[in-house]
Amino acid sequence: MPHFTIEYSANLDDLVDMGATVELVRKAAVETGIFPLGGIRVRAVRCEHYAIADGRKTYGFLDMVLRLGEGRDLATRKKAGEHIFKALSAHLDPVFANSKFALSFDMQINDKETSWKRNNIHDALKVETVNG
Amino acid sequence: MPHFTIEYSANLDDLVDMGATVELVRKAAVETGIFPLGGIRVRAVRCEHYAIADGRKTYGFLDMVLRLGEGRDLATRKKAGEHIFKALSAHLDPVFANSKFALSFDMQINDKETSWKRNNIHDALKVETVNG
Amino acid sequence: MPHFTIEYSANLDDLVDMGATVELVRKAAVETGIFPLGGIRVRAVRCEHYAIADGRKTYGFLDMVLRLGEGRDLATRKKAGEHIFKALSAHLDPVFANSKFALSFDMQINDKETSWKRNNIHDALKVETVNG
Repeated sequence: MPHFTIEYSANLDDLVDMGATVELVRKAAVETGIFPLGGIRVRAVRCEHYAIADGRKTYGFLDMVLRLGEGRDLATRKKAGEHIFKALSAHLDPVFANSKFALSFDMQINDKETSWKRNNIHDALKVETVNG
Repeated sequence: MPHFTIEYSANLDDLVDMGATVELVRKAAVETGIFPLGGIRVRAVRCEHYAIADGRKTYGFLDMVLRLGEGRDLATRKKAGEHIFKALSAHLDPVFANSKFALSFDMQINDKETSWKRNNIHDALKVETVNG
Repeated sequence: MPHFTIEYSANLDDLVDMGATVELVRKAAVETGIFPLGGIRVRAVRCEHYAIADGRKTYGFLDMVLRLGEGRDLATRKKAGEHIFKALSAHLDPVFANSKFALSFDMQINDKETSWKRNNIHDALKVETVNG
């Protein structure tokens, strides 16, 4: 945790650098201060086939879902979500200026009772802090 | 909202036109009358790697999840879901006739407290209605 | 049901055979004994764009979500999830040994009131059992 999954219409590849977009979301997530650094994972899935609104092919979308663990209250989640959404939305201003486009972001909370993980990135980051 | 995400086994590309499939779901969603036109987003994600049932490679699947906003009662959601599923299922009759295949459709409701969006498609559609 | 969806960083393709990975998850799911054989669907989605932890490009992740139907108690779900996670984790030991990597697995329960399906794999498996 946390997991950010972006799905986007393939036509966005002409308008946005998606590598820069996932990196921007990662940084915004770090800035919220509510996530362990080693647990942050952002990714984007390109959707070749899509149909939006009245079906016009020139429309585009980017939808992001954050799955996070239990234990943060609503106010904390709302504040963090707002920070990340604002950063992403500003990053996509040129897309809104140049096309008809729908951006969205939702959060889901994972059930801690049925959640498993194994991660050696946390330790790698610690070693670095000690040695670096 | 609403978001329709299809995941499908790559072998379906030989049996189905996936561009036509997302367009069919879009139309069926419009026909339910419960969604704002400008919010409808359907997409399909091709899954190159998959393993189904007893592992036979010729099996296929198409799974669709709809994420929608709060505020529609169960009867409304069931009726809309049934309409969309019937349309999709009929569209895939040839796949069922020619292969062993699993189709599924589930709904999830997004928490409105942690949901953000920005969308200039709604306005584009309105302008068109006024001018068109 | 059940649906296993894996999302993974594209750099994993150099370290893991993803076809073997979905097949391993399928087998582990069968071994739990709690799922109807014909309903098991495992798939993997390659994520070309990703950003992890402090952003280092060499990090990798594999995240799996299981969506399953209602009707199994928590103890049953935990035991099944643990079995599947252990198998997947052991399969990925070489990735942990050779890279900084984050593995995760979460379960979600679908609402049976808004769940539709059509599946001719169940019948194909039955015919085989009778004739085979």
